[in-house]
Amino acid sequence: MLRVTRSIHFSSSLRYWLEDLSEAENLKRFGAQARQHGHNYELEITVAGIPDPETGMVVNLTHLKAVAEKEIMARFDHRDLNADTDFFVHTPPTPENFASVVFRLLDEALPDGLLSRIRLYATPEHWVDVIREQP
Amino acid sequence: MLRVTRSIHFSSSLRYWLEDLSEAENLKRFGAQARQHGHNYELEITVAGIPDPETGMVVNLTHLKAVAEKEIMARFDHRDLNADTDFFVHTPPTPENFASVVFRLLDEALPDGLLSRIRLYATPEHWVDVIREQP
Amino acid sequence: MLRVTRSIHFSSSLRYWLEDLSEAENLKRFGAQARQHGHNYELEITVAGIPDPETGMVVNLTHLKAVAEKEIMARFDHRDLNADTDFFVHTPPTPENFASVVFRLLDEALPDGLLSRIRLYATPEHWVDVIREQP
Amino acid sequence: MLRVTRSIHFSSSLRYWLEDLSEAENLKRFGAQARQHGHNYELEITVAGIPDPETGMVVNLTHLKAVAEKEIMARFDHRDLNADTDFFVHTPPTPENFASVVFRLLDEALPDGLLSRIRLYATPEHWVDVIREQP
Amino acid sequence: MLRVTRSIHFSSSLRYWLEDLSEAENLKRFGAQARQHGHNYELEITVAGIPDPETGMVVNLTHLKAVAEKEIMARFDHRDLNADTDFFVHTPPTPENFASVVFRLLDEALPDGLLSRIRLYATPEHWVDVIREQP
Amino acid sequence: MLRVTRSIHFSSSLRYWLEDLSEAENLKRFGAQARQHGHNYELEITVAGIPDPETGMVVNLTHLKAVAEKEIMARFDHRDLNADTDFFVHTPPTPENFASVVFRLLDEALPDGLLSRIRLYATPEHWVDVIREQP
Repeated sequence: MLRVTRSIHFSSSLRYWLEDLSEAENLKRFGAQARQHGHNYELEITVAGIPDPETGMVVNLTHLKAVAEKEIMARFDHRDLNADTDFFVHTPPTPENFASVVFRLLDEALPDGLLSRIRLYATPEHWVDVIREQP
Repeated sequence: MLRVTRSIHFSSSLRYWLEDLSEAENLKRFGAQARQHGHNYELEITVAGIPDPETGMVVNLTHLKAVAEKEIMARFDHRDLNADTDFFVHTPPTPENFASVVFRLLDEALPDGLLSRIRLYATPEHWVDVIREQP
Repeated sequence: MLRVTRSIHFSSSLRYWLEDLSEAENLKRFGAQARQHGHNYELEITVAGIPDPETGMVVNLTHLKAVAEKEIMARFDHRDLNADTDFFVHTPPTPENFASVVFRLLDEALPDGLLSRIRLYATPEHWVDVIREQP
Repeated sequence: MLRVTRSIHFSSSLRYWLEDLSEAENLKRFGAQARQHGHNYELEITVAGIPDPETGMVVNLTHLKAVAEKEIMARFDHRDLNADTDFFVHTPPTPENFASVVFRLLDEALPDGLLSRIRLYATPEHWVDVIREQP
Repeated sequence: MLRVTRSIHFSSSLRYWLEDLSEAENLKRFGAQARQHGHNYELEITVAGIPDPETGMVVNLTHLKAVAEKEIMARFDHRDLNADTDFFVHTPPTPENFASVVFRLLDEALPDGLLSRIRLYATPEHWVDVIREQP
Repeated sequence: MLRVTRSIHFSSSLRYWLEDLSEAENLKRFGAQARQHGHNYELEITVAGIPDPETGMVVNLTHLKAVAEKEIMARFDHRDLNADTDFFVHTPPTPENFASVVFRLLDEALPDGLLSRIRLYATPEHWVDVIREQP
């Protein structure tokens, strides 16, 4: 089996913060993460499949980058994850939650079953993998 | 499926050396590795699961770091793997053997089934993965 | 001559934004950087000198880390550079401006002339050095 | 389960180019990749198994490096993948195709079933995994 | 003093080869480097100066990237350094020679005295710095 | 001015320990560093000069690597810095002291004035530069 991975980078602002909680409650639950901070996110996008006999590629990288540009970069790069998107109003933008959103956005935009895995680095020492369940 | 990884670093001294063998026999079997040397070990700890709806995290990182501090750092950081522990008297501290010990120590200290994998880098170009067998 | 470097990491939120300008003017001048984003900053702190004959060290790393903790981490880690500090009201937190602030804060807190250079990475591909002028 | 990985590096010249196509057709199909370029390839070789009780190792690294030297380095390092090998006459040396060749060469030279996976980095941001199908 | 650095990447094919020498003479003088190979070059471009009070930047990064695109990427990315340029007919494209060419091209295209240094990585373990002589 | 750098790696065991002090005194002065530990050292060797017109190189890398092999690798790789060398009996193998020894050994073995700088990484976050004083 072949898996091809392309990594991209973007920069976002965020805080772990639930609108339904007071400032004191957010700080108690999330500690320093409840304060506004930011990350250089590194995102690895992995697709699985058989290379096209004509091009020798599992996926056209130009197309993959266009999808990533539209679905990920345009939404999250140089944006505030809390204020500028609807994904983290009732759930905080932890790496787990953010990676789940990223996987879903890419999976819906790519051909069925092509996306195999994403890895999202919040820092070089902390990351999350979302892996497609085998059918 | 979600997998969350946190990496930590520590520094140990070691040699591949069996007490039952003579110096000549150890040097013959293990070559330069039989001489006292050391590594900056990098350890990736991966847990698998579903994020807690309240915190958005698969595991409380503060708790995970406390376990790693007690089970790994306190035992192995700035220590001699041969002289300061009981794990490598009859078997040498190869990356394979050391990683197996690390997996077992973390697995016993964490909630049942939480630990999914560890990766232990002896050098940036040589590492071992210990992966939980699927039930 | 000996130079010793220790690197630390922190995470901040920021935007290039001048209070005296309108939103349209800020966006025109600074483009995407005028939107709220964030970085995993990597800061290298370099001191120059002669090792103490007794300790073999140019600087006591525990002391250096305490200074960095108080002057840098406490001010900037998990903070918004614009909202949570006074440094970037009339000048934007470009890497150039931010690095100048960092150098000054560390230089004033360390023994006279000890600090030789700082390097501040905004991303792995974009960084600034502030170097002490030779007398 | 234990997996041991060793990485090696080599440098090759290549272009995506099919002998059956004209220059214009190759440029149309492959774009800039049809022009002669090159990579510092990084190859991770992963073997799976149980450590030998006597040596504590899944595989003798000296033997593994000798196999990699003969099968990979001698064929591809400081070579032109198109002109100096027979693998890419009718199919271009995409990372997918090149990784498939590398996996097959190593798999045939190593004990049956020992090779578990290879990862081939064309650049730090683009790589391919070839993974042995589970029986 | 402030120094700002931006790194870029490109991929080229090359061999150490002098047109005036026979194949045997080239192989004798340059060994494996006389064979066609390639690199993922990493180029760090460093400029020195005082930040513009209005923008807070030493140099407009968009302009710097446009210069690098025209002078470096268009000439060398996905190109053969020997066949596709005139720089290495009578002198081989060693990192020293290639870095000297890169420095000269950038220096001539940038405002007088702005360019302070370039660093060119042929591999992660082998690189060359070209540093402007202090007046 | 041209500077060429080649990096090498080795693995050593060490402790900060003075023979003239008791165990309690060593532990008090050096803390955890007084316990036996180890590092994957990374050493960058930088030479300065003008490329040879015939080879296009400032230094013959094969010769440089032979010097590094004899002076550094043979002495320190897979060795205990305290027990296996004479350099750290009365002074501890801090990065400062170790880097000074490495610079002196290389400088004496290389042509006069060729060595410009060494950088010795004890860990990826802690390193020392030794820089030749300008005459």
